[in-house]
Amino acid sequence: MDLHVIVPAGGAGSRLWPLSRQGAPKFLIDLTGSGRSLLQATVERLEPLAVQTLIVTGAAHEAAVRGQVPAADVVVEPSMRGTMGAIGLAAAIIQEKYGDVVVGSFAADHLIQDEEAFRDAVRAAVDSARSGYVATIGITPEGPSTAYGYIHAGGEPALEGEISSAGGEARAVESFVEKPDGATAAEYVATGEYFWNAGMFVAKTSVLLGALERFHPEIADPLKELARRWDDRRAREAAINEYWEPLPNAVIDRAIAEPLAAEQGVTVVPVDMGWSDVGDYASLADVIDRTKLSSQISPGGTAQQTLTIDSPESLIYTHSKPVVVVGVPQAVVVEMEDVILVTQASASQQVKSAVDALEGINLEGLR
Amino acid sequence: MDLHVIVPAGGAGSRLWPLSRQGAPKFLIDLTGSGRSLLQATVERLEPLAVQTLIVTGAAHEAAVRGQVPAADVVVEPSMRGTMGAIGLAAAIIQEKYGDVVVGSFAADHLIQDEEAFRDAVRAAVDSARSGYVATIGITPEGPSTAYGYIHAGGEPALEGEISSAGGEARAVESFVEKPDGATAAEYVATGEYFWNAGMFVAKTSVLLGALERFHPEIADPLKELARRWDDRRAREAAINEYWEPLPNAVIDRAIAEPLAAEQGVTVVPVDMGWSDVGDYASLADVIDRTKLSSQISPGGTAQQTLTIDSPESLIYTHSKPVVVVGVPQAVVVEMEDVILVTQASASQQVKSAVDALEGINLEGLR
Repeated sequence: MDLHVIVPAGGAGSRLWPLSRQGAPKFLIDLTGSGRSLLQATVERLEPLAVQTLIVTGAAHEAAVRGQVPAADVVVEPSMRGTMGAIGLAAAIIQEKYGDVVVGSFAADHLIQDEEAFRDAVRAAVDSARSGYVATIGITPEGPSTAYGYIHAGGEPALEGEISSAGGEARAVESFVEKPDGATAAEYVATGEYFWNAGMFVAKTSVLLGALERFHPEIADPLKELARRWDDRRAREAAINEYWEPLPNAVIDRAIAEPLAAEQGVTVVPVDMGWSDVGDYASLADVIDRTKLSSQISPGGTAQQTLTIDSPESLIYTHSKPVVVVGVPQAVVVEMEDVILVTQASASQQVKSAVDALEGINLEGLR
Repeated sequence: MDLHVIVPAGGAGSRLWPLSRQGAPKFLIDLTGSGRSLLQATVERLEPLAVQTLIVTGAAHEAAVRGQVPAADVVVEPSMRGTMGAIGLAAAIIQEKYGDVVVGSFAADHLIQDEEAFRDAVRAAVDSARSGYVATIGITPEGPSTAYGYIHAGGEPALEGEISSAGGEARAVESFVEKPDGATAAEYVATGEYFWNAGMFVAKTSVLLGALERFHPEIADPLKELARRWDDRRAREAAINEYWEPLPNAVIDRAIAEPLAAEQGVTVVPVDMGWSDVGDYASLADVIDRTKLSSQISPGGTAQQTLTIDSPESLIYTHSKPVVVVGVPQAVVVEMEDVILVTQASASQQVKSAVDALEGINLEGLR
């Protein structure tokens, strides 16, 4: 496929605390007991398609990322400049080294159950990218969620060339829309024309950086200058100060995808593949293999026996002690080496406020 | 007062597992963070009234009991023969040694908040006992509970002599009634004539053992023979085999109190003193000092910080890790050295079934 895979690996995932920590965020963790982290799973599911994998992460996680994925190239983001900075820098470095190739960007901390369907969709997106589009992957909504932005697809295939050999169908994107309210989400889903935006983009570097040059030369030009000096360690330091640090924060959706969609330059490949961004314990419980719920391993811990009575759909992570849950439906119990969290799926959005409150009781070290 | 206090210390308290264990049952534990076990609290609250304290317990707990209450005498029950066996043996041993004195029996695993009110009631009961009655303490119902048996008091004081100097009023008991259903309990409570039976009895040894002799000579006679030989270690062994082991299991309420009440031989001193048998986590949460809920000490553990968000009236026992509870009202979280229990007050009656189920997953060692 000649696809160069970019994996932005960032985000704290604090709603999955204490599994996810500042020092060991969500993408570095084996949330599902699969034996590999979300990052490792992301890289592995793309391996059949990728000629190269480049992970973009922060300095704090460089060592862990290299340890988990030794075969990948790693670009350390000098500081946070949003997804446009991270993906743009990666694309510019790849173009500098490999010329005009197809790159695809895929978040490091999502779960996908049907990996074949995913790869078929990526193949269709690569076909569309070769035809000059920025191609996105659109998730067939499982319901009128208000947690995601939506991609509004036109009714017709974008162009003849977008009919993928794998059967995936690239459709023209009319617009990107922000997270809607419930009523709007229901309208979107009823039309069949709206798909969840999972932040996956596939495009030729020339198309991606060309669009960036047109819409945001103040970002594109410094990135190209920095990429040119990236392999020279000494020059890189100075270039970071000169070109990276002054960059504005920007999100790729708004910087490129939205204005390009208005010009009919974006396609979407819809796919139903059991996708989840595993945003909190409720969505984690939804996607996890039920047979693994009763005896999970926390990072660094040992699987322990668990017993649940009148506590259906409970999610239990053990570290060193057996856990018994009685009469708490959809309980979430996470025993780590240094802390225990007890919550219920219905309350899992509030876990973030617990993390915020730790400082008030001098437990900020647990964040 | 010349009161000889008998404290039967038995019962597993498995609904308070894993705080309460087979090897360290409820009465040996500091459930409330008060710094003393329920047994120690029981003995201490009676100390101002007691000339002697005699604890009756099983061989498995003798060492722990002696360690916790070094000043008390301890009688080791050779085997379980019900409350009649335990209290009858203690009364017979006391009579053998001290003659005809007033004894009072008080369970080792109840909590009483108003200790002055309790002692006033005991004083009134002792007065009544001196007049020849078996005097009970009746708990003013806090509601139509179906968890307790009731003592039905007559409307009038039993006898002139029962008007206690402390203001407690001993009333004639008409009958003892078993745990009622909800409707019956509501009727009982509405009359004002029914009191919770907390299993507290005060009587002269001559009255207690005399009644036992009349109603159950097959129990009274062997107990007297055994008591006569109790202080002679070698004779005791043989006497246990001859007199104790053949004894039937019997409950003091049915063996003595009920038939004696039918003869107008029993009085009750009603008292409102914040009594609880701490039968499960719901009743424990009801009586515990709220200021202590957030940082409990488990036996052998260290107090840890806790954080509760949207989880009112939660009850948390820590051992070695901070505990964070999010969105689980009336949560019960017990971290012990070897196991973690998570439940809610409303489900606390089911904890016993969890204990029963431990064997099925080869965790019977945790019982």
